[in-house]
Amino acid sequence: MAVAGAVCRAAGEALVIEEIEVAAPKAYEVRIKVLCTSLCHSDLTYWKGLEGPRGVFPRIFGHEAVGMVESVGDNVVEVKEGDIVIPFFHPNCEECWDCKSNESNICSKFPFGGLGMPRDGTSRFTDSNGEIVHNFIKVSSFIEYTVVDICNLVKINPDFPLDKACLLSCGVPTGIGAAWKTAKVKKGSTVAIFGLGAIGFAVAEGARISGAAKIIGVDLNPEKFKIGSKFGVTDFINPKDCGNRPVNEVIKEMTHGGADYCFECVGLASLMNLAFTSCRNGSGKTIVLGVEMNGTPLSLGCYELLKGKTITGSIFGGIKAKTDIPLLARSYIDKELHLDDFITHEVNFEDINKAFDLLIQGKSLRCIIWMGRQSPSTMCIHQ
Amino acid sequence: MAVAGAVCRAAGEALVIEEIEVAAPKAYEVRIKVLCTSLCHSDLTYWKGLEGPRGVFPRIFGHEAVGMVESVGDNVVEVKEGDIVIPFFHPNCEECWDCKSNESNICSKFPFGGLGMPRDGTSRFTDSNGEIVHNFIKVSSFIEYTVVDICNLVKINPDFPLDKACLLSCGVPTGIGAAWKTAKVKKGSTVAIFGLGAIGFAVAEGARISGAAKIIGVDLNPEKFKIGSKFGVTDFINPKDCGNRPVNEVIKEMTHGGADYCFECVGLASLMNLAFTSCRNGSGKTIVLGVEMNGTPLSLGCYELLKGKTITGSIFGGIKAKTDIPLLARSYIDKELHLDDFITHEVNFEDINKAFDLLIQGKSLRCIIWMGRQSPSTMCIHQ
Repeated sequence: MAVAGAVCRAAGEALVIEEIEVAAPKAYEVRIKVLCTSLCHSDLTYWKGLEGPRGVFPRIFGHEAVGMVESVGDNVVEVKEGDIVIPFFHPNCEECWDCKSNESNICSKFPFGGLGMPRDGTSRFTDSNGEIVHNFIKVSSFIEYTVVDICNLVKINPDFPLDKACLLSCGVPTGIGAAWKTAKVKKGSTVAIFGLGAIGFAVAEGARISGAAKIIGVDLNPEKFKIGSKFGVTDFINPKDCGNRPVNEVIKEMTHGGADYCFECVGLASLMNLAFTSCRNGSGKTIVLGVEMNGTPLSLGCYELLKGKTITGSIFGGIKAKTDIPLLARSYIDKELHLDDFITHEVNFEDINKAFDLLIQGKSLRCIIWMGRQSPSTMCIHQ
Repeated sequence: MAVAGAVCRAAGEALVIEEIEVAAPKAYEVRIKVLCTSLCHSDLTYWKGLEGPRGVFPRIFGHEAVGMVESVGDNVVEVKEGDIVIPFFHPNCEECWDCKSNESNICSKFPFGGLGMPRDGTSRFTDSNGEIVHNFIKVSSFIEYTVVDICNLVKINPDFPLDKACLLSCGVPTGIGAAWKTAKVKKGSTVAIFGLGAIGFAVAEGARISGAAKIIGVDLNPEKFKIGSKFGVTDFINPKDCGNRPVNEVIKEMTHGGADYCFECVGLASLMNLAFTSCRNGSGKTIVLGVEMNGTPLSLGCYELLKGKTITGSIFGGIKAKTDIPLLARSYIDKELHLDDFITHEVNFEDINKAFDLLIQGKSLRCIIWMGRQSPSTMCIHQ
């Protein structure tokens, strides 16, 4: 089928909406009509060409979305035409040792990474010249219709609000999951979050729901504290205001010896080290969520490790999408989980480049990109 | 009281048995008659002057021991004259947040480190010239009588065999605890142990008791496998025999993707990294027990962390000495825990330097040094 897709032809270039041929779903695949999608920092990172398989263009970005099943390939029994589904980038086959284990969300049948569809590595997109347009991390949602493997989508209740469903596709579960599944934040504990973007706030939200007593946000932008309080951030540290005092010393003082949990949400090895040295001896845990932006290895003092500190990381916050996304949706319906405040902007599909500008300028947390709606072109909900 | 003590007067020099004045115990302190003691690698490291407060001499080493209470200072109610006690280097006040927590064994009332007794930092030893002879990590057991804080000893059943009791003082619980308390090794899991000294074998013993299905020992000395099988090591990798294949690849193949738990028992940052890359994505845990011998920081690939791997470390294997040493003693009596094979040699106190030679030459796991027994001078139990 020929549909409109926002194609990126070279790193850092504005997306251009072109006519794209979307192939029929193969076995175990589902073609979905994208209803809305949103822009995540990972799209931006790959768009800049800074990471992963570099220079893979033309490409259709986008991996946070919600859609309706249009058609299914052979062997698909889990969903049918008309179902509302959330695609996700991180496979969950539900058959391998890891998917069956309570301790891992790293599917070993379909390892994360690589171009194209999980089973054959090819793309379902071609442009008007018949040239391949590459897939982006198994989803490619900046297009009216896309094809996703059954291991990369989950059905949700059709009554669930679409824009909130879209948020459950990547960034927000990554942050919530890091607190809930990876760190297993305990009631009454202390938490420090380094970097207050959407992921950092989602960590705060996960920590708040888990009953953390103190949630310290660390960011260079003082505007973040006002926003953060909506997600449970109780204290704010601006490193610029600490004078000569190292941030880890400030955190240790605020937490009587070090935070129980420290989360690095930026992607800087130096900040991961700072987080590690800010957590308490004996039981402190540091969780790395950020993808190191310069490829720098993490350097840790061995003696800090011996003091019983733990450092770990997770992809997708340790979330097992097929079981956990429905739980998060339920939590929103039950008014436990706050999702509304993550949506700061909305645009129509033809204005998708505005979503990039807003995120680059640090103005948005999540900008919802509506596929089928006409004007107003950019609606700012709050800033 | 004047007693015989083995004094080290300079780094790397043979110990000399001298007459030492041992002061009476102050408040919260206990003076004990050392019955037997054993030599641990940490004694050797500090004896060489390679680590910690350097050049602190003259000093009385030794921290694995069992003794009988001779007298107690004020406020000591936990033990009385004649009780058999195990001293230990790692304080356990049982009052602070950490000692009361199930997650930490890093006493925050008496942090590990520093010279002298925990409460006032002074030594209870003077030589025949009235000069101070320094304490070693709160114990100093290479002497007929020593003074230990009540936070550094635990009473045991007087019927428990003394040489086995001595083993419960440091090294063996460090290894067993790393498997039992720090890693919480699960039944049916796979384990890789890097470095097969007494600590590595104790990790194997802890993993064996925890029900690990495969326990892989990694060492350059093929003699270790024969010994290791006594402690539950099921497979052996000699890196020299791997040709061009990296050890982590060999381990991944043997464990279908990576060991569930990897233990570094040598103290080399490069080996910690190798251990980390040998554990499985999603749920693999690496536990560092070795004190990095060159002060080199640990370098980790950030992307390895994101794949859900965890790295942590522990002092004293996460053991809370006052509660856990009696549990280990019980486990030995119940014939679950094997201790006998750790004792490879025995010497009398006057031959203490032989114990150093045996450990330096890699010939002993544990050499028991008997305080009150005369000849035979060196008895080799097995090699």
